[in-house]
Amino acid sequence: MKYIVSRENPRFKALKKLCQSGRERRKARQIVLDGMHLVESLLASGRSPLEIVISDAGKARSEIARFLETGEKCSSVICLSDALFAELAPVETPSGILAIASMPDEAMRVDLAGDAVLLDGVQDPGNVGSILRSAAAAGFRQVLLSEDCAQVWSPKVLRAGMGAHFLLNLHESVRLPEFLNEYRGLSMATALGADSTGLYEQRLQGAVAWVFGSEGAGVCPDVMASVARRVRIPMPGGCESLNVAAAAAVCLFETVRQRNLAPVSC
Amino acid sequence: MKYIVSRENPRFKALKKLCQSGRERRKARQIVLDGMHLVESLLASGRSPLEIVISDAGKARSEIARFLETGEKCSSVICLSDALFAELAPVETPSGILAIASMPDEAMRVDLAGDAVLLDGVQDPGNVGSILRSAAAAGFRQVLLSEDCAQVWSPKVLRAGMGAHFLLNLHESVRLPEFLNEYRGLSMATALGADSTGLYEQRLQGAVAWVFGSEGAGVCPDVMASVARRVRIPMPGGCESLNVAAAAAVCLFETVRQRNLAPVSC
Repeated sequence: MKYIVSRENPRFKALKKLCQSGRERRKARQIVLDGMHLVESLLASGRSPLEIVISDAGKARSEIARFLETGEKCSSVICLSDALFAELAPVETPSGILAIASMPDEAMRVDLAGDAVLLDGVQDPGNVGSILRSAAAAGFRQVLLSEDCAQVWSPKVLRAGMGAHFLLNLHESVRLPEFLNEYRGLSMATALGADSTGLYEQRLQGAVAWVFGSEGAGVCPDVMASVARRVRIPMPGGCESLNVAAAAAVCLFETVRQRNLAPVSC
Repeated sequence: MKYIVSRENPRFKALKKLCQSGRERRKARQIVLDGMHLVESLLASGRSPLEIVISDAGKARSEIARFLETGEKCSSVICLSDALFAELAPVETPSGILAIASMPDEAMRVDLAGDAVLLDGVQDPGNVGSILRSAAAAGFRQVLLSEDCAQVWSPKVLRAGMGAHFLLNLHESVRLPEFLNEYRGLSMATALGADSTGLYEQRLQGAVAWVFGSEGAGVCPDVMASVARRVRIPMPGGCESLNVAAAAAVCLFETVRQRNLAPVSC
């Protein structure tokens, strides 16, 4: 284990750049995972980190100490002083452990006949992460994001996704109308207005593509034009709308309910 | 309209204190609403702002200009230079309009026989706001929060709530076990584990109190001990859990679906 205390150390400088710059991460095709839960999710998906970075305080925590003891997960482990680690960690409460890993390739082709979640301009990282988590929990396997969504591999989205990233085929910068025009299942977007039909009147047994739009503007017109059905979530309280991640959870789990899949014990 | 350009202006100093300090707001029993949507939600609930604060840039926006022209919503309007306004606004993108209003009293008594949403240690302001929004949309009217939840009237929770605050009876610092022990409907908490039953097997036609716990630890043991039923959301994807606001949306809208209320057109 290499120990770094100097801000001038070239490895530390490179790490800091990687942690703080989305452009740097995309250039290097690397991701930064913050916290034990994300590191374990990476390992559970059969992938290995390129490097593990821990802090002095982190090393002393039992779950991190246990993790470092047990086996050959990573050949390169770096320990930083707490002060240096705090400069790297992209979130407020330092977890004590980061992993650097290769950005998973979009190796899987888009499946035009399978279930899908499509995000159109969802920019809040917390919302994107929450939707990925709901999609993975509901058994969806592919998520397609338009160009103007939050960066799906950014630290904030990874954190909110809680490991869902590694259960999904993620496709960024997708032209959603092109996908929708060739899609062979039923495509649906949440919408307000008179030309929409109620969620609970839909039949969701076959393949479905759920489209969720940006917080402010909803699904944009050219995407909406390519969607087969506009669906309204009934809101008896008279409040005008839901948070997009809440709306996504309602639609995805109504799909689960209707399919009546045998629940996996959690 | 009073125009302020100096940082040394006593009214500006007082406003800044109010905007930046939760303690100050609680002492003054006042809230700060950021953006046109929240200001309109306040007015729609029959309340009036004590003071409207706009920026130079905000004054030039058509929706704010229109709002200021039409009628006597507030006797006190202050205009700030953009630089001063940016110091007040508690969020990143200045909306150009703030309102100061009295913190609504907890005038309504807790209803031991009606529907309720209980939050136990939900600390993320975005999650609390999203749950309030879902509760209001689903037709729930009272939300009870334990002492360790995010401050429900804080700017971040107000922003995420998108006006839901003014449709709900909100009770902070509630001892949830005491409420649950006297509650006359069916109380339920989301939980993992073998002693829970599936969400879609519940009958939700009568009064229900849904309990949602903190992101990390879930519902705490002494609250769980007072809950009538532990409910599991089936997750066929095998992912272990949902974001708490997503889980709340799923449970609250399953309640809506079962009651089959006539949808209000949105």
